[in-house]
Amino acid sequence: MSVYTKVTPSQLADWLKRYSVGTLTELRGIDAGIENTNYFVTTTHGRYVLTLFERLPERSLPFYLGLMAHLARQGIPCPAPILDHSSGLYSILNGKPAALVTRLAGAPVLSPEPAHCAAVGAVLADMHVAGQSFPATLENPRGPKWWRETAPLVGPFLDTTRRQLLDAELAFQSRYRFQDLPRGPIHADLFRDNVLWDDERIGGLVDFYFAGVDAWLFDVAVTLNDWCTHPDGEIDGRRAIALLGAYHAARPFTAIERGAWPAMLRAASLRFWLSRLHDFHLPRPGELVHAHDPEHFRRILELRIRDAHVLPWIA
Amino acid sequence: MSVYTKVTPSQLADWLKRYSVGTLTELRGIDAGIENTNYFVTTTHGRYVLTLFERLPERSLPFYLGLMAHLARQGIPCPAPILDHSSGLYSILNGKPAALVTRLAGAPVLSPEPAHCAAVGAVLADMHVAGQSFPATLENPRGPKWWRETAPLVGPFLDTTRRQLLDAELAFQSRYRFQDLPRGPIHADLFRDNVLWDDERIGGLVDFYFAGVDAWLFDVAVTLNDWCTHPDGEIDGRRAIALLGAYHAARPFTAIERGAWPAMLRAASLRFWLSRLHDFHLPRPGELVHAHDPEHFRRILELRIRDAHVLPWIA
Repeated sequence: MSVYTKVTPSQLADWLKRYSVGTLTELRGIDAGIENTNYFVTTTHGRYVLTLFERLPERSLPFYLGLMAHLARQGIPCPAPILDHSSGLYSILNGKPAALVTRLAGAPVLSPEPAHCAAVGAVLADMHVAGQSFPATLENPRGPKWWRETAPLVGPFLDTTRRQLLDAELAFQSRYRFQDLPRGPIHADLFRDNVLWDDERIGGLVDFYFAGVDAWLFDVAVTLNDWCTHPDGEIDGRRAIALLGAYHAARPFTAIERGAWPAMLRAASLRFWLSRLHDFHLPRPGELVHAHDPEHFRRILELRIRDAHVLPWIA
Repeated sequence: MSVYTKVTPSQLADWLKRYSVGTLTELRGIDAGIENTNYFVTTTHGRYVLTLFERLPERSLPFYLGLMAHLARQGIPCPAPILDHSSGLYSILNGKPAALVTRLAGAPVLSPEPAHCAAVGAVLADMHVAGQSFPATLENPRGPKWWRETAPLVGPFLDTTRRQLLDAELAFQSRYRFQDLPRGPIHADLFRDNVLWDDERIGGLVDFYFAGVDAWLFDVAVTLNDWCTHPDGEIDGRRAIALLGAYHAARPFTAIERGAWPAMLRAASLRFWLSRLHDFHLPRPGELVHAHDPEHFRRILELRIRDAHVLPWIA
């Protein structure tokens, strides 16, 4: 259940007067997502998603919503926030900051083929290039600083082997400075359920609420770890090469990125192992039903360490 | 035939490198429109329309394209220009200014019912409200100044009766000062072929290349003269009341607009009578096949003069 804040049709119709989207014809809650309340909204002018931000700090909303608007204007298939009459990207509805964004067509593909991975690699590269001219900035909210804060919280729940793996990986990562890599706004959570497909075409990238400014290569690693990985965590070489090759064709990798690739795949694994440990052992009320098994990303991390010298790459 | 400037797939693929729209998959010329060259463009990221501006002064493009971008961001269903990597709205392709805009779904409804007219009235009002915050300005290029310039050009082709009607109407209109009416950006050409329907919903308003800043009521009059008029030029009261009522519900008419309504319906008739006379008697090369019969708007003008005291209105 993901509707934390109830909105009635008459409350919404009143709020919609601040927009030029016509009149409300349908309002339906969406049972997905754990961070926000989402509704499908249909008006006489179009189909939208209404999001009420339950937990995100309001000061970060201009970055998320502004980035989506910026990318959409440049042709990246992502939800476009609708501006209200005072050109605002969001305003308060029933006590929560709320935004109206375009609703994209399509549905996730959960068993992707190499062709899907190629399409995702290409759009990810295009998104990075298009984001370069976005002026606002927000540090990746799940970056190294957050790892260091979160490790002590989840450590007490781990057995010795896992605690040693976590400590060793944090120590390993602390020796890398990724600041020299090409960087800009990244999605940072482009898993399979965040890409909608309209037949074989990408209808849209959704859920930008983990976005931040970080190394582009981190985004590639996060994406590959989900799209090009077998259920046991092993990389599928065909899918990986398809994703990397299409990315490289749209935005060529640099030599420094090649050098950072093995450590970056480990960093992307660590980030999701940590967040899943946190969600699993320290759930917020009502959240447990959504918690993913943390072990999946622990295995992926171990495999990426094991495979450091035999990773797929494009040169 | 409306492809004046030929663009090959390889020329376009090269030009598209300035955008983040993925790679070209289809290019097809559009046989419609007389002012511009248009192509349907499909890429891996979406469906677009490419327009090469053949005759519009380049200095007016920021107004047209900026207005479309502004309205689309506010939820008005209209083509959204895609920004290139330097945030440009257009650039030169094969010697012509060219823009890439989103392609909207739907097809025109040529025999509208009152429900269609209500939907058009509502979206027209919403468009006027949304356009209020658009900062750029461009005088309506088919306003009173243009009438006065065009009348002497077409006068020699008219018989005495028609010339007297034209002279009398220009004299009548010159006594009105519409500057006091609520005003802002208007579409100015929202005929049935410029509204796309996706089932019974408006999929999009297209062809903003006659837009300008003028009285909102002029836009209402232009729209009503096409949408709510029988083939003989008589107003269809049911359709007219549906359009005016829905407009009024979204943006209430003012008392001063009520007073100006009869003269405004005549002004909207005069504007299209004049332009059709000009296109008919002074065609540009290759244009004749598209010329509409000027008599239709001459009849409409006469009927609006006749009906000045029995016009449909909403109060």
